[in-house]
Amino acid sequence: MKIIDGKKVSIEVLDEIKSSVENRAKNSLKIPHLAAILVGDDGPSQTYVNSKIKACDRVGFKSSLFKYNDSISEQDLISEIQKVNNNDDIDGFIVQLPLPKKINQEKILSQVDPHKDVDGFHPINYGKMALGLDTFLPATPAGIIELIKRSKIQTEGKKCLVIGRSQIVGRPISILLSQSKVFGNSTVTVAHSKTINLKELCIDSDLIISAIGSPEFIKGNMIKKGSTIIDVGITRVDDSSSNKGYRIVGDVDLNSVSDSVGYITPVPGGVGPMTIAMLLQNTLKACSLSD
Amino acid sequence: MKIIDGKKVSIEVLDEIKSSVENRAKNSLKIPHLAAILVGDDGPSQTYVNSKIKACDRVGFKSSLFKYNDSISEQDLISEIQKVNNNDDIDGFIVQLPLPKKINQEKILSQVDPHKDVDGFHPINYGKMALGLDTFLPATPAGIIELIKRSKIQTEGKKCLVIGRSQIVGRPISILLSQSKVFGNSTVTVAHSKTINLKELCIDSDLIISAIGSPEFIKGNMIKKGSTIIDVGITRVDDSSSNKGYRIVGDVDLNSVSDSVGYITPVPGGVGPMTIAMLLQNTLKACSLSD
Repeated sequence: MKIIDGKKVSIEVLDEIKSSVENRAKNSLKIPHLAAILVGDDGPSQTYVNSKIKACDRVGFKSSLFKYNDSISEQDLISEIQKVNNNDDIDGFIVQLPLPKKINQEKILSQVDPHKDVDGFHPINYGKMALGLDTFLPATPAGIIELIKRSKIQTEGKKCLVIGRSQIVGRPISILLSQSKVFGNSTVTVAHSKTINLKELCIDSDLIISAIGSPEFIKGNMIKKGSTIIDVGITRVDDSSSNKGYRIVGDVDLNSVSDSVGYITPVPGGVGPMTIAMLLQNTLKACSLSD
Repeated sequence: MKIIDGKKVSIEVLDEIKSSVENRAKNSLKIPHLAAILVGDDGPSQTYVNSKIKACDRVGFKSSLFKYNDSISEQDLISEIQKVNNNDDIDGFIVQLPLPKKINQEKILSQVDPHKDVDGFHPINYGKMALGLDTFLPATPAGIIELIKRSKIQTEGKKCLVIGRSQIVGRPISILLSQSKVFGNSTVTVAHSKTINLKELCIDSDLIISAIGSPEFIKGNMIKKGSTIIDVGITRVDDSSSNKGYRIVGDVDLNSVSDSVGYITPVPGGVGPMTIAMLLQNTLKACSLSD
């Protein structure tokens, strides 16, 4: 079992971004500026946004946080988004999900200026992704591709199983891995809640991307010897032996698969840190494109 | 073996569209108007465009054909597209593909007003399709879904193999069949030129959508008993026994699979006629949306 150290790779990527920012500064080019829009006071959302801001500090980006009470109306939120769209100093921004239920998420995401849409969720950017055109790739799938690339894992002609069909992870990674690209060209199957015989599909796969949030669901007897697993699941489970009273686990039972798996990303410290690094890479790209 | 009669189903759809047009006329609503932009004198392209115009006549649509010499520059073609975008009488239009090689297809397709993009190839509409939002679905995958729906073929939990990953057929149908919808929820695998053991994948599938243009490639010993095959391939092969000197064949060897296949679309007379019917349905939708 080889651990794909997402934390380490993310630091490499952040260091590369930092150098680019320093070079930009030397050449009197604009310093990238990422903004986040946060509605309500959902705990995990606040944590994610804080991590993004901390990462901005680390690489020398400017950052802004716009916080709104969850009583904000859809129309007012759209007005706030328009202000950020029109703010020339901000290169890219994200609307932290989930939004309060009374707000139509699709409507909000389609209001983001596609040139500043560093999450890649605007339909025009999502369409470009699906068409294989240059765009801002959603951060989690982009992070997975980057991990595969830097770990030199071959994907061409390999059988890849994506478990989960979410707009944020499963759908885009299934498309990207199947496209005619160097770290693509896999034969990709998308499994989901209506899939029958998931275990059989797992055993038959060279590469599994699991993004269902089902704690330690994948066991050693479900995988092919030497296969690669990218574990996108992240769930809190009660654990009285921990000081915090809980621990963070992925979709994969690491102990159970350790004898048979080839490469695996741990949880935490696998895909998670890469997501933030790729968001910053998108922001650097947005800034460079407007030079 | 049950033949899915695409010709018959397409006539049903066209008759429904015709009734809608008659109802619109009774209610003094606008008559739908489809335009086609044709560059150069590629024989098959002219045939396709003529079929589309003939279908417009049949259902009572207005139609326009804008023909350009293949010496037209990219910039001039964009100007012509802008004129069609700005022509209030035209509800939807298509740019017949392929375009001459010197013209950037992606650039041209992104110039089409998304509200008139009845082919569904503009990135914003393609993105909405991938996100499961309401949009103009590309005509061939929409036609396949309609055939499956009207033949009452169950897709939920079924193993579906899509052979081919083109932007026009393979990619979109693979996404649509895998989405959480009544005629979706399949476990979809996308195979392509880099796929290994295609035969094994075929045998394992309940539903095969073949869109590779490889004449009579799928044989009886490659499929599961009772499976459904949608044959999107269409190739001319030499045939001295035919008056024309050729015949039209699909990706499937119909004689060879006849004993084991459940449902199958013939070539010609399967998916082909449905494509035009769905294009007209998109045009009716575009017209209704601007009422």
